[in-house]
Parts: sequence; structure tokens; C-alpha cells
Amino acid sequence: MHLLSSPLLTDLYQLTMLQAYFAGGMNGTAVFELFVRKLPEGRNFFMAAGLEQALAFIGQLRFTDEELQWIEASGLFRPDFARRLAELRFTGDVHAMPEGTVFFPNEPVLRVTAPLPEAQLLETRVLNLIHLETVIASKAARVVLAAEGKRLIDFGLRRSHGAEAGLLAARAAYLAGFEGTSTVYAGCEWGIPVFGTMAHSFVQAHRTEAQAFERFIEVFPDNAVLLIDTYDTVGAAHKVAEISRALAARGIRPKGVRLDSGNLAQLSREVRAVLDAADLRDAFIFASGNLDEYRIAGLLAQGAPIDAFGVGSSLVTSSDAPVLDAVYKLQEYDGTARRKRSPGKATWPGRKQVYRRCDADGRVVRDLVTLETEPGDGEALLEPVMRNGRRTAQAPSLQASRTYARSQLDRLPVWLRTLSDSVEPYRVEISPSLVALAETLDRASSAPA
Amino acid sequence: MHLLSSPLLTDLYQLTMLQAYFAGGMNGTAVFELFVRKLPEGRNFFMAAGLEQALAFIGQLRFTDEELQWIEASGLFRPDFARRLAELRFTGDVHAMPEGTVFFPNEPVLRVTAPLPEAQLLETRVLNLIHLETVIASKAARVVLAAEGKRLIDFGLRRSHGAEAGLLAARAAYLAGFEGTSTVYAGCEWGIPVFGTMAHSFVQAHRTEAQAFERFIEVFPDNAVLLIDTYDTVGAAHKVAEISRALAARGIRPKGVRLDSGNLAQLSREVRAVLDAADLRDAFIFASGNLDEYRIAGLLAQGAPIDAFGVGSSLVTSSDAPVLDAVYKLQEYDGTARRKRSPGKATWPGRKQVYRRCDADGRVVRDLVTLETEPGDGEALLEPVMRNGRRTAQAPSLQASRTYARSQLDRLPVWLRTLSDSVEPYRVEISPSLVALAETLDRASSAPA
Repeated sequence: MHLLSSPLLTDLYQLTMLQAYFAGGMNGTAVFELFVRKLPEGRNFFMAAGLEQALAFIGQLRFTDEELQWIEASGLFRPDFARRLAELRFTGDVHAMPEGTVFFPNEPVLRVTAPLPEAQLLETRVLNLIHLETVIASKAARVVLAAEGKRLIDFGLRRSHGAEAGLLAARAAYLAGFEGTSTVYAGCEWGIPVFGTMAHSFVQAHRTEAQAFERFIEVFPDNAVLLIDTYDTVGAAHKVAEISRALAARGIRPKGVRLDSGNLAQLSREVRAVLDAADLRDAFIFASGNLDEYRIAGLLAQGAPIDAFGVGSSLVTSSDAPVLDAVYKLQEYDGTARRKRSPGKATWPGRKQVYRRCDADGRVVRDLVTLETEPGDGEALLEPVMRNGRRTAQAPSLQASRTYARSQLDRLPVWLRTLSDSVEPYRVEISPSLVALAETLDRASSAPA
Repeated sequence: MHLLSSPLLTDLYQLTMLQAYFAGGMNGTAVFELFVRKLPEGRNFFMAAGLEQALAFIGQLRFTDEELQWIEASGLFRPDFARRLAELRFTGDVHAMPEGTVFFPNEPVLRVTAPLPEAQLLETRVLNLIHLETVIASKAARVVLAAEGKRLIDFGLRRSHGAEAGLLAARAAYLAGFEGTSTVYAGCEWGIPVFGTMAHSFVQAHRTEAQAFERFIEVFPDNAVLLIDTYDTVGAAHKVAEISRALAARGIRPKGVRLDSGNLAQLSREVRAVLDAADLRDAFIFASGNLDEYRIAGLLAQGAPIDAFGVGSSLVTSSDAPVLDAVYKLQEYDGTARRKRSPGKATWPGRKQVYRRCDADGRVVRDLVTLETEPGDGEALLEPVMRNGRRTAQAPSLQASRTYARSQLDRLPVWLRTLSDSVEPYRVEISPSLVALAETLDRASSAPA
């Protein structure tokens, strides 16, 4: 069994429901939609991500013999259940917003249309993947907006929530506009540029800080970024200057320095002055250490001469909003629209489309959520991506999705690009026919059953 | 390449440092310690977890041919680097606190003693694993304390940060005292009890709610937990009562009901009354829906007749504190203690032990962090777990670790068991010899280099 692709990476109730669907012959066409119910505090938009991983999971969905044996041996199911599962493949359709699309609460980002057991079984893992990458891309997009074009590197693997989270965080951050990551595996997997400097342990393991710098420059003559805050940041900058003078004759220069603690605004200015005085004007200053969009915006507002930022924990866990209220809900079964009415968790029924209208400058002005069959006004955001269990077209490259994500951010008006709640939320209209359908369903089901 | 075991799941700088260590012949013995710098707001203790996964990673550490080829082809390293990596295995020692141990800031939970390149290379993934499970176990322990013996089930997979996070969250929550999980794979992997009810989609896919309940009870006559909040919670409880009366003749009864929205305190009382009046006194009430330790404590304080709680997003992301300030720092190299002095991030040097003293009732009263060579007073918390790259003893069963974790929580005094910050932090003393060593190192390195 392979954790990342196993259909047993699911909630038990998906399997118990499947057994009941099989028992009842409930194989009609179901339509599920994935959406986020509300924005976290301080946020103005989401960025869709994780579709490629979700589609890969859906496309390869099957139970292995080992998994079926576990199910049989578990004693949790009827004897014939494993046999039914053995045949199960995904044969349905998927519509989705492309990765990198900006979206808002109550807008479906993914719609699955398939026989009920197939569509049901996808819920847990598809949510797990799309939730994670959307959480990270939505956070990363804010950091990108705050950094105003400065270079950004994901540094978060050590405190991401496990291996897959770290890897997909590197991907989602790159998608949203980061320049690269420290995670080597992400370089391997998708060709995302990988960056690295040195750790404090490297400096500490040498007899002196100067010796550590010299060794590193010898080994990486074209590429050395020196970490200068282990003992005394400005003192270390002077050591870098001295070493550089000695190396100048050989044409070797440090590429940059990294600050990881202290008052970064003040230290970056002092360090910049030391480097400039030593004729190291092209050596860049890289800053890290508990950074997020707010701290980066603050440093830039103070005019800190920082050229690049490493962002770790706050990015890869989206620490101020690690959870989105993302759900996957049945909207239609066997030709009839369905609606959940639980307090605070009611859904809009039916299969839907989202249309976006922009102004003359290309800035977004309004979204409209309609029934799929209704005519819309503007750009339709949900596209077919899988038909009868197969991709409708080749997946876009990560690079192409990243360019698209950039264009999505460029289309946001200034009031949605702020780091705090906008005064008014973005306008998402629900079409009159959708409201009418919800009312009809409510009337029908409040009649005595 | 397998994501979960790959040494390329690391920060690039670990590899660049290794190349510099190789180049400089720096193969002396290094001692790294893993600790957490501070408690998140509102928290009073941590619970150690993730050791087994970390040791499994360390024990199998090696670069595959495919990984070495990627390194060679990357152009990031010297031509001979991959050849050196091919030979690399972990040959050192590991000391650690057993999983389930309660610990506090600045106490090492894991110590690695090994040739510098080996010890350095572990940093990213060992932190990644121990951080994740410690985050979750520390959160789960609070939920366990709040639930006062009520049954707790992990429901979080869909919003955990990826596959490994979901799986390890199920493990860490079980370790900390949860009764089970909805994650099937965790049942498969460790025999953790798996639980499940039904989703709203199951109810919605049927023509009527009553029909959905009847079908589910037919398929799971011994084991049906019915979700009753899709349309109207108390109305649905009456339907359950009616259905049960009809089934009574056949000896079939629902096992329980689940509430997932609304005012759970009030609804649970109303539903309890309906079930009791229908002679369903043994049908339990299960509650879920945005629960955490605070809401559970609040519900129990109101006397809500809830028998079990499903806890999801807040548990598996530790949403109020998804990141701990966990670090892995060089404390000694080649026989000499080392100390980082970065502002706000200074470390205590040398290889250390933690001793815990308890009072006559067995409650913890004080910890002491000393040099390993010093005599201590109380129970020594760090134990040898790996010597020369091999486990010193068989791993304890997850069940045994869970029992130990329970005993650790039982030893906490009341003032550390509260859900908010205790008035005073727990006493963690630094031994005088450790303070003296730090001062000696500071004097030595502030002398001109």
C-alpha cells in the first residue's frame, strides 16, 4: 500500500456509505461541488491550487489486493463488499477552476459528476489535497503582494506538517509567485528552482566565523551566501568585507549575506553600508527569521535594503489561517437538486457555474454564481478537466499555471490586495434562478414526509 | 524515489554544507539537540511524539541511485559529491525522551551524536517529523484533559495538511489519549480503532431522511450511528424514535446519533429526551462540528448529555498553534561545546540531560537541565534509543506509549492542566555548571579572533 495513492487514506464513513449504496442499488449520477464557506479573518480572496494532485489521485483510483484483503479481514464490512470495491474505478466527469484562479466564498472550484459511490469515495482525499494547496497558495499570494517584486524563497520544510505538506507547499508557493524553495525534492519533482545558504551549525562547527566563511567561499566560489548573525551581525559583515578584499585578486566574491535574527530593518542598513564601503555593492542581502506578509510589508515600508526574503513556518502552515472551511457537498442526485439546511451550513443546490465580470482595465468587479444551464455574463471559471475518467487535455505546465496566477493577482483591484479585510467584501451574486430553486426545495421538503 | 524516505526531502543547504564539510575533512563528532524554544500562548506543556517515525527515517538513511543521478545532473555540486553521498549511512547515537513524555521549553527531547555530516543531514526531516507529531500530540493532550473521560475520535483527515499529516495526526492523537480515528489507513498501519458514521450526502441522496436512516440500519444493524442534523435535528430524532419502534420486534436498534451543527448543548438535551422517551436510553449522542478543547469544556460545563466527540480541523492542524518553535542545534563539535548567540535565539551549550523531580503524590514539581556528565536529581528523561546507527531495543508498542502518555498527564498538577496559561510557568532550572559553561564560551569568543 502506498500512502499517497491509497484509497484507504479516507474516512471510514466513505466505505460504510458505499456498502449501503451498493446494498440499495444507489448508482445514480451524483453531482458534488467543492467550495469554501467563508474567508478567514483578514483575508480577501483565495487562490485555487492542488487540482493536478487531485486529478492524479482520481485517475489512478483503485483498490490493490492488499487493501482489499485488509478490508475483508477487518470484519467491518459484508463479505461481498471487497469484491464490489475491486471493480471500482472513476468513470465520471470533473469540472474545475484552473490552478492559480482567484476565487471567493461559496464559489465551486471543483465539480464531480459520477455514479454516487465513485463521487462519494473521492471526498476525503480530494478535499485533503485541494484544501492543503489552496491554503498555501492563498497565503503565498499575500506574501507575493506584500513583497512588491522582491525575491521570495520558501524555507519551511522543517516545520511543514509532514513530507507531503512540505513538498506541496513548495509547489503552491511557486505557483503563487515565489521564486523557489529550499526543498530539494521539489526541484527534483517539478524543476522548481532550489536555493540554500548555510546554517548556524556550519559557522559554529568551525573554530572561527571567518574560517567558516572562507571555507564556504572556497567550495562555492560563484554562489556563496554567508549567514552572518551567529554571534554579531555587523561584526560578521566586517569579516565578510575583509575576506572579500583578500579574495578580490582571485576574482572571487561572496554572492550575498543572510540575516536571520535581530532588528532586520536596522541591521540590513548597517550591513549594506559595510558591504558598500568594501565595494560589495552587488552582494545581496537576504533576510529570514519568522517572516510573514506583515513583517515583509513593514520592512519594505521602513526602506530596509533587503533584496530577498526566506519565508518558512508562517507560509507552509499558513499559521494565521491553517484551515479553510472547505467542503465537498452533494448538490444533485439522480436528476434532482439537493440542499443541506443545517444551521450555518446550508448550501446552494444544483450544478453551478461561476461567471466573472471585469472592468475596462481588466480588474475584477463581480462574480455571479448560476445554475450551469443558465446563460451567464463574463468569463466562465469552471472548465471541463476530466471526462469519463480521463483528462480532457494535457495538464498545463506548472510554469504556465504560475504565469496565469500572476495575471490573476494583477487583475485584483487595490482594495482586494490589502493585507487586512477590505471594507466591503467582493461582490459574489447568487442568480435569481438559484435562489428560486433553493426555495422550491425547501418548500418541498418542509411538507410532511 | 519515495517521498517519505528520500534524503532529498531536505533543505538544499544541508547538501551544500555537506559538500563543504567533505571538502574540509570535517568529520569530527557533532552533538545536535532538538528542543522547542517557547510555549505558544495559552499552553503549559508539550507532549513528545514522532520519535518512532524519526528513528525509522534515520535507520534507513541512504541515497538511491536515482537520487544520486539527480544530484550529479543538477549542476549544483562538485563532481565527486554524489560519490561521497553514496557511502553515507547513519552510524551515530541517538538519545531521546520516550514518546508521550510531557516536556517544557529549552529541554532537549532528542540528541544526536554522530560524525558532523551525518548529524547535519538529519536536521530537516527529523525536525519535520518530530515537530508535526509533537504539535498534534500536544494539542490532543489538551482535548483529552478537557473531555474528562468522554470518548474522543479524530475526524480531521480531510483538512489535515496532506496525507502524512493526516496519518500521523491520527497516530499522535491516539498516543495522547484519543480513542480512535476516522482514518482507515491508520487502522491498517497501526491497528488504531477506526470509527465512522455517515455524511450529509448519504441523507440527501435518499428521497427522505427516514429512508436514509432505515437503509443504514438495515446494512449496519449492530452499528448504525445516524446523522440527524441535515434538515431539522429534533425532527430527525423523532424519526429515529419511530423507526426504532418499528424495528424493535426484530431486535434491531440504532447505536447512536450524531449532531454536527447548531447549539449542541441545547440540541443534545432535546434529542436525549426524545431518545429516552422512545426507550433508546443506550443510544449514544455523538457531537462534531468545529469542536476544540474550549468548546468541549464549555459543553460539559453546561451539562450537555454528549457521550462522544469527533474533533477534526482544530486537532489535526492544531489550528491555534500550528507551529512550535522547534529547532535542532549544534551544541558540541569535536570535543568542544558550542553556543549560538543570535539575539532571542541563544542556546545552552554542551550535551545535556533533563532530570524531573516529583512530589510525594507523584506530581511533577521541577525539571533540571544539566550537562550530561553532571549528577542529577530525579528521573532522567533522555534515554539511549540508537547506538552506532542501530536501535538499542525494540520499539515500544503504540499501545504501551499511549499508556505511558496517560500516566504523564496524570502526573501534571491541576495548575498545568488548565486550558489557559498557568499563572506561573513550570519550573525548569538550568544547572550552575551549564550557566558557567555558557559564560566561559561567551568570554572566549568575544576575545578578538
